Amino acid sequence: MRLSQYFMPTLRENPTEAQIVSHRLMLRAGMVRQASAGIYSWLPLGFRVLKKIEQIVREEQDRAGAQEMLMPTIQAADLWVESGRYDDYGKEMLRIKDRQDREMLYGPTNEELITDIFRNNIKSYKDLPKNLYHIQWKFRDEIRPRFGVMRGREFLMKDNYSFDLDDEAGRRSYNAMFVAYLRTFARMGLKPIPMAADTGPIGGDLSHEFIVLAETGESEVFYHKDFETFDALIENAGQDDLQSVVDHWTGLYAATDEKHDPAGCPVAAADLKSRRGIEVGHIFYFGDKYSKPLGAAVQGPDGEAVTVQMGSYGIGVSRLVGAIIEASHDEAGIIWPESVAPFKVGLLNLRVDDAACANACDDLYDKLSAAGIEVLYDDRDERAGAKFSTMDLIGLPWQTAIGPRGVKSGIVEVKNRATGERLELSPDDVLTRLAG
Amino acid sequence: MRLSQYFMPTLRENPTEAQIVSHRLMLRAGMVRQASAGIYSWLPLGFRVLKKIEQIVREEQDRAGAQEMLMPTIQAADLWVESGRYDDYGKEMLRIKDRQDREMLYGPTNEELITDIFRNNIKSYKDLPKNLYHIQWKFRDEIRPRFGVMRGREFLMKDNYSFDLDDEAGRRSYNAMFVAYLRTFARMGLKPIPMAADTGPIGGDLSHEFIVLAETGESEVFYHKDFETFDALIENAGQDDLQSVVDHWTGLYAATDEKHDPAGCPVAAADLKSRRGIEVGHIFYFGDKYSKPLGAAVQGPDGEAVTVQMGSYGIGVSRLVGAIIEASHDEAGIIWPESVAPFKVGLLNLRVDDAACANACDDLYDKLSAAGIEVLYDDRDERAGAKFSTMDLIGLPWQTAIGPRGVKSGIVEVKNRATGERLELSPDDVLTRLAG
Repeated sequence: MRLSQYFMPTLRENPTEAQIVSHRLMLRAGMVRQASAGIYSWLPLGFRVLKKIEQIVREEQDRAGAQEMLMPTIQAADLWVESGRYDDYGKEMLRIKDRQDREMLYGPTNEELITDIFRNNIKSYKDLPKNLYHIQWKFRDEIRPRFGVMRGREFLMKDNYSFDLDDEAGRRSYNAMFVAYLRTFARMGLKPIPMAADTGPIGGDLSHEFIVLAETGESEVFYHKDFETFDALIENAGQDDLQSVVDHWTGLYAATDEKHDPAGCPVAAADLKSRRGIEVGHIFYFGDKYSKPLGAAVQGPDGEAVTVQMGSYGIGVSRLVGAIIEASHDEAGIIWPESVAPFKVGLLNLRVDDAACANACDDLYDKLSAAGIEVLYDDRDERAGAKFSTMDLIGLPWQTAIGPRGVKSGIVEVKNRATGERLELSPDDVLTRLAG
Repeated sequence: MRLSQYFMPTLRENPTEAQIVSHRLMLRAGMVRQASAGIYSWLPLGFRVLKKIEQIVREEQDRAGAQEMLMPTIQAADLWVESGRYDDYGKEMLRIKDRQDREMLYGPTNEELITDIFRNNIKSYKDLPKNLYHIQWKFRDEIRPRFGVMRGREFLMKDNYSFDLDDEAGRRSYNAMFVAYLRTFARMGLKPIPMAADTGPIGGDLSHEFIVLAETGESEVFYHKDFETFDALIENAGQDDLQSVVDHWTGLYAATDEKHDPAGCPVAAADLKSRRGIEVGHIFYFGDKYSKPLGAAVQGPDGEAVTVQMGSYGIGVSRLVGAIIEASHDEAGIIWPESVAPFKVGLLNLRVDDAACANACDDLYDKLSAAGIEVLYDDRDERAGAKFSTMDLIGLPWQTAIGPRGVKSGIVEVKNRATGERLELSPDDVLTRLAG
């Protein structure tokens, strides 16, 4: 993509409305604009990151055996009355009356709707287990939306729902998601800590939040110091290793504010750390909390009706864009992990009025593009300094620059955004190096 | 995907609530379920089709130079008041009050919001032309939603918006979209006729609807009979050929009901055809209708402010799922064009209790999957007849079946769903044939 044609309205100044660094940088990099309080439009650069995160989430869900579908944003209120949750959500639920005066709502989550689909369509134990997910916009009418996409009102979430015949199978589904979450976040360059958590309005007795540590986190969290040097064990875990991975990760103490009890904490004070954290995922096992009131049962092997055991699992897809920036930036701007970067490479023409320089840049752009590498090509008539600042701000993993001197000596300046490492390479070597 | 594990709840009987064939078949094939009036959940099979259509739309937009972004579903009412359209939409607009009692709405379209983004972020003629699109759910509170996803209340639409410095450039953007639309629909196996159309609440003086002919179409359309043998001319049209392609397609008479005037029609009665049609796309050129009241102007080459010229362009992504079925089915079920089929191949194990048969099927399934071919593998314990009926119903382009006799002779039965052609091939030849 040529930057001269790309819609990427960067800002030089820090916008005053942004209180945290991810919000500031997303506005400055031209990734998002606020449409109204807590509601954002994703401009092309931000949209690309959102899609990459979504795709990683999708691949790990598919790998874990979940099946993708899509439920609507607008739901009828009656299912929520049936489950008994219509009042629980209070004013955070966006309530709507349609033209026929029917009570509707913008779904904040989908336990009721998926359970209704299940009970109407799945009748036999032979159809279990099932794990169904979707990636859809949700709405939560926060009284004080803030922190940009980290605590917006309209937000993109992956949520899924497992259905099992008995408690043991249900916990296996929970474990599979626990491991899928570790893999998902690891692929984005994050190291979240799974923490025992309160279940809130979702309910149930088993729940973990996946927390990314960051100074700007919304709540305080407590964890054993060994988590900071913790080993993942997730790469090659097969179906049979799920419990041992979960045991490994839950063997060390970690708990959110609401769950942490200083008096009863098993960790010695010297080993206990407290920092602020950002929740990027939350998983729940709640047995028959929804299946029982909504009558989601299957015919068991012996012909008797069996109420199914359920869990639900959320990942804040749009929130992750902010969380990754909180975890990975410096004074100059964003530092994208390669897996979620909007483009892998920035290409800077340092002198657009020099024909040889423009030709060399065009040529490298064509070659990188032909090799399937995503390149943002700064072909604008701007000073070199401004171009480097823009590239640092938007945080692409690699910067490649060609100026008149480089053209003469056949050299491309290459910089790694994360390490600051600088190289001088021939165009062919750039290609070899970045195609990897 | 193994059908024994897949969530695809097919129905034997025709659901009574479905009045048209696409709605019936989508329910019977387990593609969708109604969540509430005019609002659908997309089950895994339907979701796959929706995503394939979305991806074709995306690729042709990108090819035409449009840039993808994403605007939210919920908008503040104030921009609509500013443009003067807040009352135009009447009761079809879903109006919402948030907890602060602010007037919000579920966007039925996005001219206001994109114009607001434009005016706040684009200041110079050097940044033009721009063409921005998004694929997002919309809501239209139909008084009598019906015909399944063809006339639902919550629906997925691609809409984009072009911004140009003057009328000539604006019409060039319009032409580019006209051709992109022809390409988009052709890739889905459709042959829509572009028809001069009324502009309705969008406004402007130049507009075409893209209409697929079908008995179940919602409105009557009129066109020159030569359209039925019309040649496309779109494959290799470059940037400079846009006008001639548009001239070619608009040279023959075609008009929707509202626009057709029997008295003034230039086509002789013998050459005029009238049938029912389904609108799958609609494009508008409306100049400064929104840019003027909303103050979207750029600094022109001479330093003066110039109000930009705009067009908007819609494709009904979720509606296309139904429209394609209306255009392509028989008594037995759906006939998917390969480009949008949920899976390319169905594989039927005709005797699951025969170990040799199961082994041969497993082996072919592994080989097809390894070749990157999407296969739905019916490994359920069902009668062969029921399996063939299910495959006919869900309409995958190719059916491959292995029974005990085939195992002995090393033969796979292959059927093309569209032509009915049957072949007997070795497993290796199946692979060669279907990998194409």
